[in-house]
Amino acid sequence: MPSISHKGQIMPQSPIRKLVPFAEAAKARGVQIHHLNIGQPDIKTPQVALDAVKNNTIEVLEYSHSAGFASYRNKLSSYYKNNGIDVSPEDIIVTTGGSEALLFAMGSVTDPGNEIIIPEPFYANYNGFAIASGVTVVPVISNIDSGFALPPIADFEKLITSKTKAIVICNPGNPTGYLYSEDEIKQLATLVKKHDLFLIADEVYREFAYDGLKHYSVMGQRDIDAHTIMIDSVSKRYSMCGARIGCIVSRNKQLIATAMKFAQARLSPPTFAQLASEAALETPASYFTDVIDEYVARRNTLIAGLETIPGVKVAKPKGAFYCIAELPIKNADAFAQWLLESFKLDGKTIMVAPAAGFYSSEGVGLNQVRIAYVLEENLLKEAVEILREALKQYKE
Amino acid sequence: MPSISHKGQIMPQSPIRKLVPFAEAAKARGVQIHHLNIGQPDIKTPQVALDAVKNNTIEVLEYSHSAGFASYRNKLSSYYKNNGIDVSPEDIIVTTGGSEALLFAMGSVTDPGNEIIIPEPFYANYNGFAIASGVTVVPVISNIDSGFALPPIADFEKLITSKTKAIVICNPGNPTGYLYSEDEIKQLATLVKKHDLFLIADEVYREFAYDGLKHYSVMGQRDIDAHTIMIDSVSKRYSMCGARIGCIVSRNKQLIATAMKFAQARLSPPTFAQLASEAALETPASYFTDVIDEYVARRNTLIAGLETIPGVKVAKPKGAFYCIAELPIKNADAFAQWLLESFKLDGKTIMVAPAAGFYSSEGVGLNQVRIAYVLEENLLKEAVEILREALKQYKE
Repeated sequence: MPSISHKGQIMPQSPIRKLVPFAEAAKARGVQIHHLNIGQPDIKTPQVALDAVKNNTIEVLEYSHSAGFASYRNKLSSYYKNNGIDVSPEDIIVTTGGSEALLFAMGSVTDPGNEIIIPEPFYANYNGFAIASGVTVVPVISNIDSGFALPPIADFEKLITSKTKAIVICNPGNPTGYLYSEDEIKQLATLVKKHDLFLIADEVYREFAYDGLKHYSVMGQRDIDAHTIMIDSVSKRYSMCGARIGCIVSRNKQLIATAMKFAQARLSPPTFAQLASEAALETPASYFTDVIDEYVARRNTLIAGLETIPGVKVAKPKGAFYCIAELPIKNADAFAQWLLESFKLDGKTIMVAPAAGFYSSEGVGLNQVRIAYVLEENLLKEAVEILREALKQYKE
Repeated sequence: MPSISHKGQIMPQSPIRKLVPFAEAAKARGVQIHHLNIGQPDIKTPQVALDAVKNNTIEVLEYSHSAGFASYRNKLSSYYKNNGIDVSPEDIIVTTGGSEALLFAMGSVTDPGNEIIIPEPFYANYNGFAIASGVTVVPVISNIDSGFALPPIADFEKLITSKTKAIVICNPGNPTGYLYSEDEIKQLATLVKKHDLFLIADEVYREFAYDGLKHYSVMGQRDIDAHTIMIDSVSKRYSMCGARIGCIVSRNKQLIATAMKFAQARLSPPTFAQLASEAALETPASYFTDVIDEYVARRNTLIAGLETIPGVKVAKPKGAFYCIAELPIKNADAFAQWLLESFKLDGKTIMVAPAAGFYSSEGVGLNQVRIAYVLEENLLKEAVEILREALKQYKE
């Protein structure tokens, strides 16, 4: 039998994959599960986006341009300019989700054996894309006590070698909900300039900044234009995860020309989803006001609830719709499984993502879980009570 | 300035990319171009597929399962069974186009530094996916005089080393139009079994087999189940190139479990396009009869025309909708550019794909072009006359 690649063998499973059979078994037993484990918003997709697809007049479903519809890139450029990010349509390649944008970025700046530095905990699939590219992730640990703020620059510098090609950040952060300050972005700018590295910033949660804080994009840092790659997506912004439309944005023309070769190899991003994404740009501003208000209310409810549970420590998120909670247990993997396998409160339980999967350092975050607040407030309140009671009953 | 990866530097451009500015300039001058350069069919997408998208009732455009809709995989399995390919839904992962299926296959079976053997000329993007995976393509030359039949197995064996992980074929072939016989597939089966290699078969043109010939799938060769990976797509079958839906199929459970990890990293294939692809399976058989009749008529017209041009040699395709033509010139790159830049007949010219981009051996196929017969017969007749006159006037 021919052998699977080493790369394929070390590709990580999704942090919740192991739990799925237990969730299915619980459902089969009639247990209702509150899903706090995945960043799939329950918010309705803007009608204008859905209508564009329903009203399409396509007769031959052709390839689009490999960089995406020109009309969409033009409007995206306007959208960014309206958000203080001055980029031209030529700086943008439309991709199949932010996922593909990350793959193009890694392919354009790294070769097998290279390293990228990522503050952890980080979005687990960065590991997958790095492994697919033959690249090693070098983590720099951020801390729950600082709310997962940017680690000291000296911690990054200790890890930089001749193999280091890029620093990857997620801002606001999944899974931390941390929003980097302008000062933190400027520190990173100085760092990548000094060491001639790329700075890849995953900004797919840009709109989700709370408490009057303003998102500061890496694209605003004009002295590092040659270094900066922004990753974006419509998935969370418009609750359109299933569209699979994102983009890679850079003012480094050589970088975009290179990413374009990767884009040409896969021909084009999906057409129907581009129709929806282009139309979504017409979404009225009130949609976001409502959505942000909703997430702030949910966050406040969730965090206030978690803080009343003895032994639970949580960093109040400033953006996105996740938080990391430290629980008074030793092994969140086992606890998450037990919640599905052996626990219920009034016929209900919760599914959470064990946070160890968001760390690449071995043995870190074992007592933490990621909670996505993508459910209505009353369900989040129930979820908190379920967690409170579960922690009372749980014996490790 | 940080440096682009070596991988990014050696990624090939699409064989026609250089020609695009010349085509645009010709159009700006009012010249009409017959596009023989790209496999974008003009055939209408089945109405049942388009209707499924127009009539969708989605309110929240959610991620789908990473392997694709269960309902779609169930129906795909039935579709394959009806086509003599006995596979279960668990053997199938729905991908974003055949492109992503190829990437998953390469990632699952190769590591950086490995080699894959491909009969050339081959679909140019195999090079791109190989480079993205850090893998070297080792070509084995097939010949226009044999109609691009499978090269002798001894030619493959000469190239097999400890680094060789897979043989990739495209059947029927893009750009050759060659349809492998059952005997040729059996020869490959013996080869991959003997050397413990994977056999990756790109069968996206399966339905397009002409002259009463029957497509013989690698999946029919049950003694190499552990070795076989089939790549498929709805792009050509239903004229749905812009959907970006394909799949990877294998009875090797370890292979599918590995590809699934790559699939999870990118979350899911596009939702709207899956709706269309699932509905497309209801396309009446008469659609294909009509389409095949149309392509056979086009092929016959094109090949008969090309054979009347002095000095032109062409291998009559048995499938797909491409042919490779050898022209009485030295450099098809320069000729293709000249056609767009300096030639017209009654205000019209043609755009063809120089075939050198379909070879990875240096200096091979320089006098060949790939012609896609994706235009109506009357346009193909005009195209032949344009080529005839152009070759008369062209001075190298």
